[in-house]
Amino acid sequence: MLIVVALGGNAFAREGGRVGSPEEQIEQVRLAAGDVADLIEDGFDVIVTHGNGPQAGLLAERVSDYLSLDMIDAATEGWMGYLIANALTNEFRRRGIRRSPVVIVTRVIVNEKDPAFQNPTKFVGPIYDKDTAERLARERGWVFKWDARGGYRRVVPSPEPLGVMEIDVIRLLLREGFVPIAVGGGGVPVIANGDVRGTEAVIDKDLASQVLANALNADYLLILTDVDYVYLNYGRPNQTRLVKVTVSEAEKYYNEGQFPPGSMGPKILAAIRFLRGGGKAAYIGPLGRARDILRGLVGTQVVMYDYFDSKHLL
Amino acid sequence: MLIVVALGGNAFAREGGRVGSPEEQIEQVRLAAGDVADLIEDGFDVIVTHGNGPQAGLLAERVSDYLSLDMIDAATEGWMGYLIANALTNEFRRRGIRRSPVVIVTRVIVNEKDPAFQNPTKFVGPIYDKDTAERLARERGWVFKWDARGGYRRVVPSPEPLGVMEIDVIRLLLREGFVPIAVGGGGVPVIANGDVRGTEAVIDKDLASQVLANALNADYLLILTDVDYVYLNYGRPNQTRLVKVTVSEAEKYYNEGQFPPGSMGPKILAAIRFLRGGGKAAYIGPLGRARDILRGLVGTQVVMYDYFDSKHLL
Repeated sequence: MLIVVALGGNAFAREGGRVGSPEEQIEQVRLAAGDVADLIEDGFDVIVTHGNGPQAGLLAERVSDYLSLDMIDAATEGWMGYLIANALTNEFRRRGIRRSPVVIVTRVIVNEKDPAFQNPTKFVGPIYDKDTAERLARERGWVFKWDARGGYRRVVPSPEPLGVMEIDVIRLLLREGFVPIAVGGGGVPVIANGDVRGTEAVIDKDLASQVLANALNADYLLILTDVDYVYLNYGRPNQTRLVKVTVSEAEKYYNEGQFPPGSMGPKILAAIRFLRGGGKAAYIGPLGRARDILRGLVGTQVVMYDYFDSKHLL
Repeated sequence: MLIVVALGGNAFAREGGRVGSPEEQIEQVRLAAGDVADLIEDGFDVIVTHGNGPQAGLLAERVSDYLSLDMIDAATEGWMGYLIANALTNEFRRRGIRRSPVVIVTRVIVNEKDPAFQNPTKFVGPIYDKDTAERLARERGWVFKWDARGGYRRVVPSPEPLGVMEIDVIRLLLREGFVPIAVGGGGVPVIANGDVRGTEAVIDKDLASQVLANALNADYLLILTDVDYVYLNYGRPNQTRLVKVTVSEAEKYYNEGQFPPGSMGPKILAAIRFLRGGGKAAYIGPLGRARDILRGLVGTQVVMYDYFDSKHLL
């Protein structure tokens, strides 16, 4: 049984989405390694994916004069993949698991005609004052939007992931018993119409993980994040936790706009697409509790049918 | 026939070792992709390795508060590996070569008792004034040395590479016809005594390439750089280019101190060790002319015996 485990980029950062010190980063990854090792002990083949929001933001703030966003994505695949690999190697050794993690720098194909390129929405990097934002817009062609926290922030397109260039390698590694770490930060977005070239965008890591999972015919998609459950009417008096929903229910709630675009929305969408593409079940729950999530003790499950609900039999 | 092709980090930078703009970086990698494609057309299986001096220096200057040097090494493996992968993908498509490049983030084992840790010698990052250097030494435990260009620069250990953690994956990928891009920047230095952990050091990329080449029983090691030949008495009136030397001659010159430690020294040492470890020949020559170097039209060859020289038959 194959499971794709997507680790949230925020799970590797401090409160507020700032990157921690080197020591803190190593500590934070340890929790994720425990989850992966648990799943392997339970008989799963595992692929690990991860986000890179805080990390790409840091690099975008510091080195955008030398690295375009695709290069930054690739750099975070190396940096964070390496930390995950070390944590897995150590956890596997401690438990006597004879598997090796491998970090594959992954390129993900997007369409240059994706409407996202006309309407950049994803914030990256720091908040600037008006003058600096205008200068950077002029000098580098960046697009800025007002950030509610008080200032201008760069926005970049977040196009749909269409395919994983390294899919053959990942399939080979799985067959040979490795634990691939792939599509980090959603993968490096490339346009493959003619020459392959990177593009200044970021791909949602949950959607990229779903594309990877379906391409590999994975059985399960597990999205680990910093919440215990997905909620309906989140933050309102009638807030309700979702424990188990069918994909049809999830689609209904999604279309009602229950889930905010920047956070829970793409996770639910990834779950829906994964099931509609042949996956058995998707799970969204807290980092450090993978085994409990799969047992239904915490987290939200998205399933094809709910066997305690006879509606689908009618 | 297997050849390991080591690309100089400076070959991807502007004059003076500064990182170029994103467009310049893409342009510079194109030359290397042509070399690799030529070798594949000539029947070789190829592994690509690369340096990261200017790139790691840039990141060390900008983000050392968040990334330790091992994380920086890993980030450059992602960043530069990705650029090389794109260039190879495009060059292969243009020529109808049915091979895929794969970037493997590689960890290289070093010994924590390596004397290099007591005597850091490798400059990284920018030049600081005395006060800043003293503050950073206090705050982060960094070691500084006087740089002849006028100021204090951080020095880090450059320990010996002992083994490649991802060797099994690289072997598998080669067997399946992929073109691995590995041990970028010499690989991420890790200590594997007990838990695997990164260490604040940089491994020479030529020595790491040699360790990889010998571990894979490669036939040839090709070090591409920005010089046409290796020279004896470099820069002096009796300067002599080396066209073809035996490994014994190379050892003699190396022990005489003919080659400066920071530049040509490790390349010659890598060539010597490669041949002493079973390699057939090592080549040092200019980027963009791999095919000419192997044909003896340019560059320096280090061979076991020189068949035009009967001394080894006595």
